[in-house]
Amino acid sequence: MTLPAPLVDLLDRIRRHDDDAAGAARNRHRTLAKPPGSLGRLEELGARLAGIAGACPPPVAQRPAVIVAAADHGVHARGVTPWPQDITALMVAQFCAGTAAVNAIARTVGARVTVLDVGCASEPPDHPALHKRRVRAGTADLTRGPAMSRDDATEALLAGAGLADDLIADGADLLVTGDMGIANTTSSACLVAAFTGAGARQVTGRGAGIDDDMLAAKRNVVAEALTFHRAAGRHPLSTVAALGGLEHAALAGVICAAAARRVPVLLDGVITNAAALVAVALSARAVGYLIASHRSAEPGATVALEHLRLEPLLDLGLRLGEGTGGLLAVPLVQAAARILGEMATLEDLTPD
Amino acid sequence: MTLPAPLVDLLDRIRRHDDDAAGAARNRHRTLAKPPGSLGRLEELGARLAGIAGACPPPVAQRPAVIVAAADHGVHARGVTPWPQDITALMVAQFCAGTAAVNAIARTVGARVTVLDVGCASEPPDHPALHKRRVRAGTADLTRGPAMSRDDATEALLAGAGLADDLIADGADLLVTGDMGIANTTSSACLVAAFTGAGARQVTGRGAGIDDDMLAAKRNVVAEALTFHRAAGRHPLSTVAALGGLEHAALAGVICAAAARRVPVLLDGVITNAAALVAVALSARAVGYLIASHRSAEPGATVALEHLRLEPLLDLGLRLGEGTGGLLAVPLVQAAARILGEMATLEDLTPD
Repeated sequence: MTLPAPLVDLLDRIRRHDDDAAGAARNRHRTLAKPPGSLGRLEELGARLAGIAGACPPPVAQRPAVIVAAADHGVHARGVTPWPQDITALMVAQFCAGTAAVNAIARTVGARVTVLDVGCASEPPDHPALHKRRVRAGTADLTRGPAMSRDDATEALLAGAGLADDLIADGADLLVTGDMGIANTTSSACLVAAFTGAGARQVTGRGAGIDDDMLAAKRNVVAEALTFHRAAGRHPLSTVAALGGLEHAALAGVICAAAARRVPVLLDGVITNAAALVAVALSARAVGYLIASHRSAEPGATVALEHLRLEPLLDLGLRLGEGTGGLLAVPLVQAAARILGEMATLEDLTPD
Repeated sequence: MTLPAPLVDLLDRIRRHDDDAAGAARNRHRTLAKPPGSLGRLEELGARLAGIAGACPPPVAQRPAVIVAAADHGVHARGVTPWPQDITALMVAQFCAGTAAVNAIARTVGARVTVLDVGCASEPPDHPALHKRRVRAGTADLTRGPAMSRDDATEALLAGAGLADDLIADGADLLVTGDMGIANTTSSACLVAAFTGAGARQVTGRGAGIDDDMLAAKRNVVAEALTFHRAAGRHPLSTVAALGGLEHAALAGVICAAAARRVPVLLDGVITNAAALVAVALSARAVGYLIASHRSAEPGATVALEHLRLEPLLDLGLRLGEGTGGLLAVPLVQAAARILGEMATLEDLTPD
């Protein structure tokens, strides 16, 4: 399949994670004024940050930013959630007003909140924090045809990449991925199954909270979609067009753009984990720039993270999305970098 | 046993955790603009903070402070660690200089670092961040007699309580417990065993990193100490005097003083978990003011936390102490409070 030129260019700019810098960080940890290994997973996180930056010690993120990509889903018509579709745009308005969970947590960790509308069914009101790159007013029902065209998916992906580029140019040095879209755990389950080979039962969960009957129906919808699109092209752009949401495509773009600029990306829950599968299928190098913030309660999240070989930092039973879990891990990322840059060595202790 | 008057007074001032405020927080969570339960463990953390403050929403901690209590241990002579004893005072100097892991993480989360010397073997140099309340130059060998007298333990406990009081009077609204003391995982293992009834094998770990031979020796030392003090008084003050460290007593005082002022306390690793057992044995009400930040890699930590029925927020394989894990959980505590105070309700979404 021929990819559009701007996408080819974006993927070409993603360089390999720097193993030498990561190794230097591991060596440095052995010299610091503490028992070797005593900072547990923060030590390997520090090495990962060094590999991302291509420098040891890695820079300490001072200006984290979360991108909440919002869009609606045609599969909503199949009764996979009790929530009405207009909640998507209503929540976008809350993100802009600063009154959602993502805003409360962003204030806690000093992160900027930006919202990207790539396809809410109803158009949210204008706001300085809202970037309108509306590709279409939600996807089509993915059980009856492709959710969108490959051109739509490309447009959404480049919208995400463009916003990430703008934020990074404006100083953002750690990107957190977030999502909003009623019915998007259904689409995420389809993507996770398609990219990992897992079955519908394994990847489908209760999303925002559904009962046993609706869960059974949702599993059937996912299985039906996977069967319907079995013969779809194997290219990741075809897969995300067939089964994904506009926000998945946009978040894959965010990940690729950040990776191309060697900026770390904190994943959030299952929607962003599914988007990571798209990004890594497009460029295997992108995985080196990802940090899994938390293990979502949604089962597809664990399937996706295992496929990506990413071990989440937090396990708090979160299943909200918006970027909430990703933001909670920002201080862990900052601490891991600070430790490498600011600690005395064992030699400093006894200077004679 | 008659307790000293200032200690009786301190324990008397600890009021019950406010179940009504906690219940109000749980109810409020069901009204917020998100699927009920979707913030996982942050929701119960918010309820706990409401119960601690006696108010819903609870205040957001703006001025967290860590108290690193430092002291030495006579049991060091028994060969339970390869680290020389003078590392304790050398690390105190690093805490004061701002070059230890605790400082790097404190800067990340905006916390103040204070150090309390209740009994380093060698006296660290003066520094504005160092509070010298030296009860004695380290404890005695707890396998051959009590580690200290009950008067010593009381003095250390009141020193910790006094520093906590001073910090709270100065504006601190979230206290993090930290520790420094070569050989203090041995003393912690003894305390955890004594307060929970667990065996030496179950509570003794590798501390700062020891080999199999030293671990076997350390287990024998713990078992020997438990046997030696089997007939010691059952009062918690007798137990901490027999088997504890001066920093354990001081941290128990920190916990009691914070609880008496309804200020939440973030525990760190096994030393602070052992100190929590002392505090809760002195006043069962104190447990309501505790938050377990992380699950230390040290096995006694899990035994202690299960006994206290506290589920840690983080599990990062940390085993450094100093308050490092406690500080990493500060943003989780702040976020849990902010969410209760700053989020729109589901009713706000569609105001018609």
